[in-house]
Amino acid sequence: MANDEKKVVPRTLKGLSDYWPEEVIARRRMMRTMETLFEKYGFSPLETPALEYLDTLLGAGGENANKELFRLESPEGDPIALRFDLTVPFARMLAQYPDRLKTPFRRYAIGPSWRTDKPGVGRFRQFIQCDIDVAGAPTVAVDAEIIAVLAETMAAICPLEFCVLVNNRKLIDALLDDCGIHETDRQKHVLRVIDKLDKVGVPNVRLELGPGRIDDSGDPIPGVKLTDDVIEKVLGFIGIEGETRELVTAALESSLPDTVLSREAITEMRELAEALEALEVPQAHAKFAPSLARGLDYYTGPVYEVALIGVPEFGSVGGGGRYDGLVSRFAHQPIPCTGGSIGLDRLFAALRHVGQTPDIPAPVQVLVVTMGNVPKAETLRVAAELRSAGLRTETFFASRKKMQMGNQLSHADHYGIPVAVIIGEDELANGIVSIKDLRAGKEAREGIDEREAYRQAGKTGQKSVSRTEMAATVKRMLLVDPA
Amino acid sequence: MANDEKKVVPRTLKGLSDYWPEEVIARRRMMRTMETLFEKYGFSPLETPALEYLDTLLGAGGENANKELFRLESPEGDPIALRFDLTVPFARMLAQYPDRLKTPFRRYAIGPSWRTDKPGVGRFRQFIQCDIDVAGAPTVAVDAEIIAVLAETMAAICPLEFCVLVNNRKLIDALLDDCGIHETDRQKHVLRVIDKLDKVGVPNVRLELGPGRIDDSGDPIPGVKLTDDVIEKVLGFIGIEGETRELVTAALESSLPDTVLSREAITEMRELAEALEALEVPQAHAKFAPSLARGLDYYTGPVYEVALIGVPEFGSVGGGGRYDGLVSRFAHQPIPCTGGSIGLDRLFAALRHVGQTPDIPAPVQVLVVTMGNVPKAETLRVAAELRSAGLRTETFFASRKKMQMGNQLSHADHYGIPVAVIIGEDELANGIVSIKDLRAGKEAREGIDEREAYRQAGKTGQKSVSRTEMAATVKRMLLVDPA
Repeated sequence: MANDEKKVVPRTLKGLSDYWPEEVIARRRMMRTMETLFEKYGFSPLETPALEYLDTLLGAGGENANKELFRLESPEGDPIALRFDLTVPFARMLAQYPDRLKTPFRRYAIGPSWRTDKPGVGRFRQFIQCDIDVAGAPTVAVDAEIIAVLAETMAAICPLEFCVLVNNRKLIDALLDDCGIHETDRQKHVLRVIDKLDKVGVPNVRLELGPGRIDDSGDPIPGVKLTDDVIEKVLGFIGIEGETRELVTAALESSLPDTVLSREAITEMRELAEALEALEVPQAHAKFAPSLARGLDYYTGPVYEVALIGVPEFGSVGGGGRYDGLVSRFAHQPIPCTGGSIGLDRLFAALRHVGQTPDIPAPVQVLVVTMGNVPKAETLRVAAELRSAGLRTETFFASRKKMQMGNQLSHADHYGIPVAVIIGEDELANGIVSIKDLRAGKEAREGIDEREAYRQAGKTGQKSVSRTEMAATVKRMLLVDPA
Repeated sequence: MANDEKKVVPRTLKGLSDYWPEEVIARRRMMRTMETLFEKYGFSPLETPALEYLDTLLGAGGENANKELFRLESPEGDPIALRFDLTVPFARMLAQYPDRLKTPFRRYAIGPSWRTDKPGVGRFRQFIQCDIDVAGAPTVAVDAEIIAVLAETMAAICPLEFCVLVNNRKLIDALLDDCGIHETDRQKHVLRVIDKLDKVGVPNVRLELGPGRIDDSGDPIPGVKLTDDVIEKVLGFIGIEGETRELVTAALESSLPDTVLSREAITEMRELAEALEALEVPQAHAKFAPSLARGLDYYTGPVYEVALIGVPEFGSVGGGGRYDGLVSRFAHQPIPCTGGSIGLDRLFAALRHVGQTPDIPAPVQVLVVTMGNVPKAETLRVAAELRSAGLRTETFFASRKKMQMGNQLSHADHYGIPVAVIIGEDELANGIVSIKDLRAGKEAREGIDEREAYRQAGKTGQKSVSRTEMAATVKRMLLVDPA
C-alpha cells in the first residue's frame, strides 16, 4: 500500500478498552483466583458463545436490557445480538439440555458481555462478568453459599474494604403489604425512591415518598403521595441497622406485624443468617441492609449487592439474587435459580482509580543484548539456554540503526525488563556472557544522556560468567531485591 | 410469567458452540500452557475488545475477510464489526500507541474472533485464536522463533503428530520470475493451483497449470496455459523434499538460476534453517515445504502452516508468516511484522474427532449427602470444613422430593463426583460422617434398580470417621486409584 494513500485513523471503539500486558496479567490472576474459589464451592464452568438469537435475549433482562442490546443479523438473516449477561445463556442451556444439566446444578462462567448504554466511570460497553448460579435449589441455604463465595472472592482479589449487602424481596413485600401499597406501579415507584437513599439522603426520600420535590436543576420530581405515617414507617424500616445479621433480623421482625408474608420473610432472613454463620462469613463482609432495593423488581427472594467501601464513584461491583422465573421463558418446568456476579472491569477500574491494582512485574525477565557482529544463531542459542532454564527471555532483533547497545538497554528499561544478558564478539570467543541487573541503575540513568549513562553503567553492576553458569546467575539476580 | 405463554425455543446460534465443564477446563489448560510458552519466548499479552470500527477491519484481511464480517452499528450510528482476527487489532494498537508500544515488540493474544463463513467440520463462526506476533524485527531469525514457539506449543498441547510446514514468498517469486510469469493475476492463479496439490494430486495440478481440466462434476476448470517445460519446472520445484531443512534448501538452490531474487530467497531459507537449528527445533516438527502456497498472496516473506498428521479432515490448525504491509494501513511509518497463530477450536475439534481430548476429572471432588432431618446449617458446616481443607465441595439442596439419598448419590454419579460425605441424624449425634468412594461401585450399580443398588452399596465400601478426620480421609481416598 502506498504511503500517500489515505490512512485509517487507529482508534478504540467508544466505551471499550484496550488492556496493557500488566493489566492483562493482573486481571487474569483475579479471574484465576475466582475460578479456584468458585470450584471450591462446587461450581463447574460452562461456556456459551457471545452471540445468541434475539428471542433468547429479548425480554429476559427487562426493558433496559432490551434497549441496550448490540443487535445484528446472522448470515442466515435471523435477528441476533451480543449477549448482555451470562445468566440468560445459562437459562437457555438449562432448558436446552435438561438430560445433561440435571438439577440441582451449580455453574460458573467468566466472560465478556456487551451493552450499548452510555459509558462512564467504570462502565464499559464490553465488560467481563464473573458469574455463579445454582439451578434447582429452592432454599436460602444456597443463597448463603453464593454470598459466601462473593465475600471470600472479594477478600481474595480486592485490597479495598467491601461488604455484601443483603436484602429480600419478601421483606419488602411484607412492608408494602403492611403499608397498604398493593398496586404494582406504586410498588415499583416506592422501590425506585428507596433505591435513591444513598444518593439523595433521607429528607429528599421523605419528600419523594410524599408530595414530590424540585431537584437541583429546578425540575419537578413527582412523589408517591404516601401519608406521613406510612412514610415514617417506610423510613423507619429501611433505616434499620444493627451490629449483626441476627440483630437486624430481630429488629425487622419487631417492626413488622405478624402476618403470613412477614413470617415467611423473617424465617428466610433467620435461615440466611444461620447459614452465613455456619459458612463463617464475617459480619463485616455480609450485612443485612433493608434499604437495598436495586433489582428488587426482578428478583423473587434474597437480593445482594457487593459494595466497595470508600469509593462511592464505583459503588457496586457485583450483586445478584434469587430469580425463580427466568428458565420458564424457555421451559414448561420452572427451575428456581439464584446467583451472583462480580463485575471484573468495574472492580478493576475502581482499583486503578485508587492506585491499588496488583503490582505485576514485567512478563519478560531477560533481554539478550548483542554487541558488534554476533551471529543471530548465537543470540538464539543463548536465548534457548535461558528459556530451557525456565527464564522468560526476549531476543532483540531490529533494523540496523536500532541495534546499538544503548538502544537495546533502553528497550529493556522501557518495558521494565530486569536483567540483560550481553554478548559481544569478545564474550563469544571466551565462552562467557555479561549479566547486568537493570533495576539497580534505572533511577540513576533517568534524566541524563542515555548513551553516557549506559557507558557508565556498563562498567558497574555487571558481571561476567561462563555460559554454563549463565541461567543460574540470572535466577539468583532475579531473587535479589535491587534496593 | 404464566406457563401457557408461548415459550422461546432454546437453541445455540448456528455455527457456534456451547462447551461443557470438562471441555472448558481442557481448553483452559491448553490456553494456559500456551500463555506460559509464549511468555517464555518473551511475548507479552495485549487485549483488545471484540468490536472495532469497520474501517479498521475493512480491507485488512483481503476480500474474503471483508465478506465474512459480522457487521453492526455502534450506539452512535458508526459502522462497526466483530473482529475477524487478532492481528488487525494489534496493528491498530501499534499505530495508535507508538510511544508506549515501542518496537521491536512481541505480543501474544488469546481470544475469540468471529466470521460469518459456512460452518463445517472444525470450522466455527466464533473461534479462539492463539496469536504471537513480533513487530519491528525485519529478520528471519524472528520467524524462526515464531516457528519454534508454534512447534513447542503443539508438542505440549497436542497428543497427535504434527508438523510446521515452512515456505517463503521470496522463493515462489524467484520461481515465478524464472518461469517468466510476471503478471499479478497469472501469479495468483499459479499460487491457487499449487495450493490444491494435496487435494487434487499432481496429474490434476499439471492439467490446471496447462490447458485446464473438467472436474468430477463435469464443470470446466480453466488452466493457466503454461508451456509444458514451465509446468515441469513448477512441478519439480514444488515437489522438492528432503531429510533436513538444509538438504531442502540445497535442492531448492540448485533448481533455481542464480539471480538477485533467488539468491535473496535462498539466503533467507539458509538463515531460517540455521536459526531453527540454534533453537533446537526437531526436523520432524518444522519442514521446508515448497508446495505450501496458502496465504502467499498476503504474506511477504516466510509463511508457515501447522499441519496435523493423519487427520486430513482437519488439515491445518494454525499458521502464519511475515506481513510487512499491515501496519502501514494506519501509520505512515511501516512496521515489519511476522506472526503465527494456533486455532484452538479447530485443534480441539480434531482432538475430539479422534478421541484424544485430555481426560479431565470432574471439577467437583466431594458431594455432601444428607439423610433425614439434618439442619441445613450443619450441611454447610461440613462443606465449609471440607472446603477449608482445599476440597472442591458441593452441597445438595433441592426440592423435597429430590432429597432421597438415592437421588443424591445418583446426582454424584451423573456428574462424576468421586466421593460422598454422608451425614444423617445418627452421624450428627455421634460427631461422625460416613465417607463413600463412589467410583468403586459405579459399574456394578449400572443397569440395576437404583435404590436397591444404593441400599447394597450403602453397606459396603463406606467408612465412618470423626469430623476431625473427615477431610484427611477424603484426601487419601482421592489419591487412591479406585481400580
